Parts: sequence; structure tokens; C-alpha cells
Amino acid sequence: MDIRLFITDIDGVWTDGGMYYDQTGNEWKKFNTSDSAGVLFLKLLNIPTAIITGEDTAIVKRRADKLGISYLYMGIQDKVKIAHELCKKLEIQLNQVAYIGDDINDLLLLQEVGLSAAPANAPVYIQREVDWQIPVKGGDGAFRAFVELFLEKEQLLDKALQLYLQKRSFKQ
Amino acid sequence: MDIRLFITDIDGVWTDGGMYYDQTGNEWKKFNTSDSAGVLFLKLLNIPTAIITGEDTAIVKRRADKLGISYLYMGIQDKVKIAHELCKKLEIQLNQVAYIGDDINDLLLLQEVGLSAAPANAPVYIQREVDWQIPVKGGDGAFRAFVELFLEKEQLLDKALQLYLQKRSFKQ
Amino acid sequence: MDIRLFITDIDGVWTDGGMYYDQTGNEWKKFNTSDSAGVLFLKLLNIPTAIITGEDTAIVKRRADKLGISYLYMGIQDKVKIAHELCKKLEIQLNQVAYIGDDINDLLLLQEVGLSAAPANAPVYIQREVDWQIPVKGGDGAFRAFVELFLEKEQLLDKALQLYLQKRSFKQ
Amino acid sequence: MDIRLFITDIDGVWTDGGMYYDQTGNEWKKFNTSDSAGVLFLKLLNIPTAIITGEDTAIVKRRADKLGISYLYMGIQDKVKIAHELCKKLEIQLNQVAYIGDDINDLLLLQEVGLSAAPANAPVYIQREVDWQIPVKGGDGAFRAFVELFLEKEQLLDKALQLYLQKRSFKQ
Repeated sequence: MDIRLFITDIDGVWTDGGMYYDQTGNEWKKFNTSDSAGVLFLKLLNIPTAIITGEDTAIVKRRADKLGISYLYMGIQDKVKIAHELCKKLEIQLNQVAYIGDDINDLLLLQEVGLSAAPANAPVYIQREVDWQIPVKGGDGAFRAFVELFLEKEQLLDKALQLYLQKRSFKQ
Repeated sequence: MDIRLFITDIDGVWTDGGMYYDQTGNEWKKFNTSDSAGVLFLKLLNIPTAIITGEDTAIVKRRADKLGISYLYMGIQDKVKIAHELCKKLEIQLNQVAYIGDDINDLLLLQEVGLSAAPANAPVYIQREVDWQIPVKGGDGAFRAFVELFLEKEQLLDKALQLYLQKRSFKQ
Repeated sequence: MDIRLFITDIDGVWTDGGMYYDQTGNEWKKFNTSDSAGVLFLKLLNIPTAIITGEDTAIVKRRADKLGISYLYMGIQDKVKIAHELCKKLEIQLNQVAYIGDDINDLLLLQEVGLSAAPANAPVYIQREVDWQIPVKGGDGAFRAFVELFLEKEQLLDKALQLYLQKRSFKQ
Repeated sequence: MDIRLFITDIDGVWTDGGMYYDQTGNEWKKFNTSDSAGVLFLKLLNIPTAIITGEDTAIVKRRADKLGISYLYMGIQDKVKIAHELCKKLEIQLNQVAYIGDDINDLLLLQEVGLSAAPANAPVYIQREVDWQIPVKGGDGAFRAFVELFLEKEQLLDKALQLYLQKRSFKQ
């Protein structure tokens, strides 16, 4: 597969769908540090990660900053349109994009990309539309599992791991 | 079934029953974004959703606002009475109401409505009183599962999904 | 069994043992609203509930206030001593006390009371010392499960439920 | 085994990998009180516990202070180097160290210590590199399970428990 970009949804993929509300108007999401290795492995192989999410919160901005994800699109109703624009910018095609999403607002984009996936918690009518049904729930590392499954199929996982360890050893 | 209104409990249905307390008097609930599609599907089919809950917190008010739920009753001891009043207002009967609740303060209303349901975490003595035992726990999307089960039985789920996607495609 | 008082530990019983820390010195616990029915059923049968916990936080104080639990002992190293004092005050014996705890600081008190229990998450060396191994984890309603198991054995669960519903119907 | 020091990772070991972000820049981790007994048992047997973590947050500092852990290293890229320095300070060798970690930044240190372990949530390529695969997930008491498994093999668990209870009984 010729995949040049990973795009990911957030709620239900990087989280278990949980939205924590308090009494004051503040809000929380629970990310899983496990997913950060997915972003890192792709980066070591020169494949960028993009986030396209329907929500618009400082929470996701912080997480993207922490992981060094520069393609961040929040408050998006029309995910297909944004994905098209990003592909144009990167001079790639939608069939060179891998996308993971879990719900109805992901459906149209899942049908357009070259490699589509959904976490284990997605509804049946989402699952049946995607190329890969990831056997990990959102919030349990579903994004990382998607990346690693792709890297394994491409026989790149060991390479990514070696690149990571070499970089670490250099620092010693 | 002639169902014109869905009413839902919150704690133990939209959440896993968890109440997060801190040291300062603030409080949290963890909602699941998955349930929002349940409200949305009903709205597309012109069936309103109402919340009747024993708790009285700004948390639930915020969630209701986010999802565009206008029938919100909080701090309610007598749920049957409120449901009667709402039915009068909407000019429908209690047997045209679907209700999902999980605990003893839901019991009397569950016995009165046209279609009653409880999530998988409800006690046995609640489960045995309801029409449908939803195989999903509160906080894992039990409300959405209830709505989708109803829509499937009425052969309306595909229609709701198509209405949703058409609306999305229009926007493109 | 002649049980006149229920005593309960908090962390690992009313919670899953989780202690949420933030960056500012604040702290959270996640309670389960399900346990509140346990306290309520006992109250309707004139059996008081007491909390004895090693931690000393405003969090537990708030929860005790919400549920109307007046016997609250926090920051307790020696749980047996406090239990003795409370029994003296209530003019009962330790063998008329039911206690549920999950860890090593509960062990001595579990060995002294008339009816001891541990939630499903307790270590094996706690489980083997208690009368009843409750098949529910802390934070999933283990306290309520303990109370209901006791009420069932005493054939009091239906009575408690009826008392609850009568009280509710009166209000209508 | 001649183990003189336990070192532990935090995220994914003392937690389930969850990082809770809010809108304001604050952050949360969920610890499990169950792990505190692991630190305590080791202390009673004069084996210190050290924390080496890649993250650098006030959250972990607070947890270390609460449990009386004085060897705390945060924001560490090169865990092997820090472990070497700590061993030098304590006049022990790396093969007298037990270490539990769950991810790629733990790999090099896991390969160097005398006794290595990973929680049940660690990726397969971490699991296959460690001496002991702990059948408990991070955040569910994986550190305590590691300590107790070690103490059982060394026939020291009953001794640790007795030391704990004696100390408690003295206080009465």
C-alpha cells in the first residue's frame, strides 16, 4: 500500500468516547499515552499524522502540541472536504490516506480513503464499511494498534522500532 | 409501536453511575459521545428526547444544552408526575412514551410507560420489570443502543442514517 | 444474624481504588451512585451505616453528607479501636457489626466483626479471611451488593424495596 | 535472587496509560491505592523503591511524596543512565535491580536489570523481552502484583504481611 498520511478522529478513537463535564463549564478527555508511539513510529518513517475532529476544544489542541502533530483540524462538520484540502497541500491523493474513525460523522471520509479502519467500539454499521476492524477499543490504544498493524503488513514495524532505539542510544 | 417521546434517566444510563468528587465541592460526570447519535436520530425522525433525573447539577444542564435537548427536568423525586405533565403538554399518552432507567427511583415510571428499558448494569429487580433489557451498560452507549433497537424494530434505523448522511452531503 | 450496624471502608470498596491527582494539589475519587441505595435500604430498616477510612479528605466528607451518613471516621490508623468506641456509643457488640474492607489495613477489623466481607478486587490473603466474598468489584457497587446479599439472606430485601416505594408513593 | 532496589515506570504501570487533559492546561493521572502496599512491603524489608519516568509533572511528585518514595527521577529520556547513577549511589549493581516498565522507552533498561517485568497491557514486543509478564494491567495494581510475586518466590510475602500487622498492633 502506498500510504503517505494517517488521519485520525479523536473522540471514540483516542478516547473511549468519554466526555467529562464539571459544574463550572470545564471539560476533560482521557487520552492514552500508548497512542503516542503510533505518531512517533510514523514520524520516524516520514509519514505525518493529521487530526480531524468535529469537536473544538483546547483539550485536543494541547494533546496535538504535546505529540508534535501539526495538521490539526477542529470543529469540522465536513471531514471529506478538509481531507481533500490537506491532500492538495501535501500533493497526495485520498487513496494514499489511511483514516480511522468510529461514528456516523466519519462514514463519508472512511468510504473515500485508501485504507479505512474503525476501533472495536464502533457501531456495526460503521464496522461493515471499513477495510480493517481494529481489535482494540478507542482509548485503549486503537490508533497505535492501527498504525502497528499497517507497519507489520508493510514489514516496517521492526524498522520503526530500531530507528527509535538507535535514536535513543545515540543520546547516551 | 406508537412512540412519540423518549425519556431518559441520566446517572447509570448516560453514565456508569460514577460521581467524581474533588476536594473543593466541584463534581464531574463522564458522558459518552456515542449517546449523542441516539438523540440525533430521534430528532431526524421528529421524536423529542426528555431527561428526568433525581440529581440537580449544572453538569447535566450543560450536556442537555450541547445536545439540544429542551425537555430537561432535574432534582425530580416523583418522575411519574413530571412525565404525566410533559405528556399533557405534548398532548400524548404515557403509553406513547419510551423510558430507560436503571434504579429504584425509576421503577414506578418504568411500570407506567409504553416501552420500558434498563441498561445491563441495572439490578435484577429492575431488569425483571422492564420490556427490554439493553445489552449495553450505562456510560457505554446504553441510551443509543435503546434508540437503535427501537428504530431497528420499526425498520427506521436505515432511514435515520440516510437522513443524517443526506443532511451532511447537502452541506458539502 | 443479629446485625445492628454496617461499617464500610471507602477506597477500593466505594471506589475501584483510583486516586485522581492533578497538578495543583487537588484530588478526586469516583463514587458510584449505585451504592447509595445500600445506605438507603439499611436506613429504612433502622440499621445505621458508618465509614471508617485511613484517608482524610474533604471528598469523603462530601459523599457522607450527601448520603446522610453521620458516623464518619477519617484518617484512622487503628480501625479496630474506632469500631470498639462506636459500638460502645451505640450500645452494641462487635459481633453485631457487618464490615466490608479490601486491604491490609482492614484485616484486623475484618477478623473481629460478626460479618466480614471483601469486594472482588481484594487480594487473595484478604479474601480468605472474610465470611463473604462479594462478587462485585469496588466502585461497581460492592457495598450495595454486600447490603443486598445480607438483606436477601434475612429475607428483608423485598421489605426494604416496598418501604422505599411506599415512601415514594406517599409523596405523590 | 539478590534484589536490592525496585525501580518503576509510572504511565502504563501505575496508571492505565490514561492522561486526562482539561481546557485550562491542567492534567490528571489516576493512581491505584492498591500499589501503595507494594511500596510499603518493600520498605518493611528494607528494599527501596525508585521512580524513573519520561514525564515531568507535579502529579507524580505528589504521589511519590504521599508514599514516601525518595528516589524520584522525572523527565528522563535515558533511563539506563539514571539507573546506573542510582546504583552507584546505593553501591549496588544493575543486576540487583528489579524494574517494571510497559513501553518502548523502557526497553533498554528492561534489558539491563537483574529482574525485568511488564504489565499485561504492554505491547507484545515489550512482553517478549521481560523476565516476568505480570498478569495485571497498569493501573489495576501491576506494581503491587510484581512486588508480591517477587516476595512469594523469595518466601517473604508472609513475613512482610506479619511485619505490617505487628507494627499496626503495636500502635493499639
